[in-house]
Amino acid sequence: MNPDSLTERIVTELDEIQHSRESRTDFLNLPINPILVFYPKDKSDVIKIVTVAKKYKVPVVVWGSGTSLAGHLSCEGCILLDMKYMNRILEINDVEWYVRVQPGVILGELNGELRKRGFFIPPEPASSFLCTVGGVISNASGGMRSVRYGTFKEWVLRLEVVLPNGELVTVGEPFVKNRAGYDLLHLFVGSEGTLGIITEAWLRITPLPPEKPFTVLIYLERFEEGVEVIKRLRRQGTILDVAEYMDETVVRAINKHFNTNLNSSSGGVLIISTPPVYERRVTDVLDSLNLRFERVDEEEILSIRALSGVALKAEWRDRVSEDVVVPLGYLDVAYREIKKLENEYGVRIALLAHLGDGNLHPNILVESRDDERLQVLYDRIGRLAVDLGGSVSGEHGIGFMKAELLAYQINSHNGLEVLRIMSDIKRLIDPQNQLNPNKFVQLAWNLWEGRSGHGRGWIKTEG
Amino acid sequence: MNPDSLTERIVTELDEIQHSRESRTDFLNLPINPILVFYPKDKSDVIKIVTVAKKYKVPVVVWGSGTSLAGHLSCEGCILLDMKYMNRILEINDVEWYVRVQPGVILGELNGELRKRGFFIPPEPASSFLCTVGGVISNASGGMRSVRYGTFKEWVLRLEVVLPNGELVTVGEPFVKNRAGYDLLHLFVGSEGTLGIITEAWLRITPLPPEKPFTVLIYLERFEEGVEVIKRLRRQGTILDVAEYMDETVVRAINKHFNTNLNSSSGGVLIISTPPVYERRVTDVLDSLNLRFERVDEEEILSIRALSGVALKAEWRDRVSEDVVVPLGYLDVAYREIKKLENEYGVRIALLAHLGDGNLHPNILVESRDDERLQVLYDRIGRLAVDLGGSVSGEHGIGFMKAELLAYQINSHNGLEVLRIMSDIKRLIDPQNQLNPNKFVQLAWNLWEGRSGHGRGWIKTEG
Repeated sequence: MNPDSLTERIVTELDEIQHSRESRTDFLNLPINPILVFYPKDKSDVIKIVTVAKKYKVPVVVWGSGTSLAGHLSCEGCILLDMKYMNRILEINDVEWYVRVQPGVILGELNGELRKRGFFIPPEPASSFLCTVGGVISNASGGMRSVRYGTFKEWVLRLEVVLPNGELVTVGEPFVKNRAGYDLLHLFVGSEGTLGIITEAWLRITPLPPEKPFTVLIYLERFEEGVEVIKRLRRQGTILDVAEYMDETVVRAINKHFNTNLNSSSGGVLIISTPPVYERRVTDVLDSLNLRFERVDEEEILSIRALSGVALKAEWRDRVSEDVVVPLGYLDVAYREIKKLENEYGVRIALLAHLGDGNLHPNILVESRDDERLQVLYDRIGRLAVDLGGSVSGEHGIGFMKAELLAYQINSHNGLEVLRIMSDIKRLIDPQNQLNPNKFVQLAWNLWEGRSGHGRGWIKTEG
Repeated sequence: MNPDSLTERIVTELDEIQHSRESRTDFLNLPINPILVFYPKDKSDVIKIVTVAKKYKVPVVVWGSGTSLAGHLSCEGCILLDMKYMNRILEINDVEWYVRVQPGVILGELNGELRKRGFFIPPEPASSFLCTVGGVISNASGGMRSVRYGTFKEWVLRLEVVLPNGELVTVGEPFVKNRAGYDLLHLFVGSEGTLGIITEAWLRITPLPPEKPFTVLIYLERFEEGVEVIKRLRRQGTILDVAEYMDETVVRAINKHFNTNLNSSSGGVLIISTPPVYERRVTDVLDSLNLRFERVDEEEILSIRALSGVALKAEWRDRVSEDVVVPLGYLDVAYREIKKLENEYGVRIALLAHLGDGNLHPNILVESRDDERLQVLYDRIGRLAVDLGGSVSGEHGIGFMKAELLAYQINSHNGLEVLRIMSDIKRLIDPQNQLNPNKFVQLAWNLWEGRSGHGRGWIKTEG
């Protein structure tokens, strides 16, 4: 069938559902070129679209708000499902401690509603003012509070999904204790739209902390001092709410673009926030290390910290942020190796980090995506993390950009058989490879098997 | 091959690994009749055993300490792996906050070591003095602190497992933030020995609370008062460390068998423990409901509470404990329905409950396992929980005893396709159905399909 008549047939079969035909780009400026964009109003629309897409063997990709950072949404000739009309909060249950929502709800708006009632969902990416609930679930996103509260892996209780065969099912239950069979819930959380399409989600909520936290901004001479602060506090069993690092380049970019006047420091700054019961312990550790620090307001300093990604993008439009995890014991080594790469390639790399959980965001500050050093540095930093026992992604996910690194990690750390099982599970649930195909696990497996060149050289082929 | 020569061949091939030939019973007195018991010393022994078992198509069942409560271990003619020699703590990492252990470590002993260093793993079943780490992982166990800290689903970071094909792999990473592929870790956690054999585990640890908790023992006139306490506290956003309920029968059994002198009360007792910051809020709620209560020591009262299972067993040897979850909003209904069943069948049902997370343990106090009412009540209570939107198991798991109820829950709540996917995943990873066969998901699917009568009438056929 030629593309135009295919599109016509699909539109005819789904004529009651709003659609459009435009192309888009995501937050990384990667292109998304669907044959059709549909705007489902409810789950029955989603079922209809998936059923028709299956009939015509057209891939389906879901768009929340496009804040993807690893090429999750890229497609040529797919049907794009834009979830903007499925954006209702369906139930806030303050006894069972869950909220039931549609996938298009903006996370920040949801947390705003919850905070009015004394609750919240703690893992908030810096993009929470924009990103959707469906996106953070599909990506198992984290954020500045993950050092205490983990990522979205730990905050989803139940999902309603449309499977690739068009069937509507749920996985999980709306409470914590449930032993009913294998845990399929966590298979769908973080599956990047490759196994099913979320139509409803039950998320855990928790009370806001009962006391104002103790928050300090620490001025470092050297990165290693920040690592030492975290190690000492953790050895003493200190619960950290927040442990965020920004290097001098990041601080200057924020000051320049947002008129803040954060003091910068040669080794960068570290924000530490803890429950107030640990105040004395924190100041003792800082004093014993002779570190300069000042007490700050948590909300205020985190709102400044949240600007860092946008500030870097404003200064270096084509910059790309890495997202790797390194065990805390190897953070110093990782830092030195990244500095070596900076010198070796002559490209500046600014460092943002959720330092408390070892999640580093080295930002590769190229002037243009055509700069071939970008791809090389991106891969080398990913491999460095794996070689140090870490992960190629803490929270941004895999998409197609990290598929090769994903295979590298699993082969190095877990055994290739694990990647085979993952790939078989994709085939089991989505035998036609219909949902967000040629990304994530499937692409990693194909690359490993040498069956696909897609995913290599992503910046030139897609950017 | 006749059984004796099969046994001989296996012993010959594995002659360097210690073995025996005895039968056993588990905590429910269910029989385990293996052809051989092996005692592996390390992972290479486990690989050898699985490889030989695969060659001769003999099922493999793993024994931690036999505290199973749902028939996880029952077998005829299997190889039983007794993990008692794989009981070492390999690493306590107080910076990364994990502990790496072999599966045969006793959970209580592990927590003893951790507590000396100011850390712990919070979900502890009442059997923690006896149960092994491998067991609590395979069963995703919970306990008295699950209302705050969840179950073992949330405390496993990484597992090393021997797959049914004899390959050694790991799933997960020894840190919280990791986006490397589908979450196979949670597929293995709670899989009841049906997908792989754990040879090492990395568990999250967390600091002991920094302040002594505020703990009260509340005397209830009616069960519903206890539910109301919990609902009010949760609506106000109160973190509960513990919320345990015991009815009058349970309190009397403990007093009788352990010479304690806990005051009983017609509606039972409720133990509430919270961080001290909530003291005023708790007493306000209790006062507003005109409830009698006294302040108690948390450790002391929980050690008494932990005796309840043993006390009930001492008084009614053949009693069986149910383990269902009911949404908090339906606890009152569930209680009334259980009381109705008690009257309808003329069997006493004592109630123990982790009330804060809706996890009820109605203990069916029959004089003998031959009492046909036991099976009927067991099933009716399970179905009641499902019909109220709950689960057939919160923490004891499925084994073979709850396989039919599992199918009922998934069909009612999730869709049968979900059970099919679970069953396909078992077949994908264990195509010969070699590991702990004919239980859990596989049995549920077979029962649903009418392909097996096993699992029905468990008490008479197995007890």
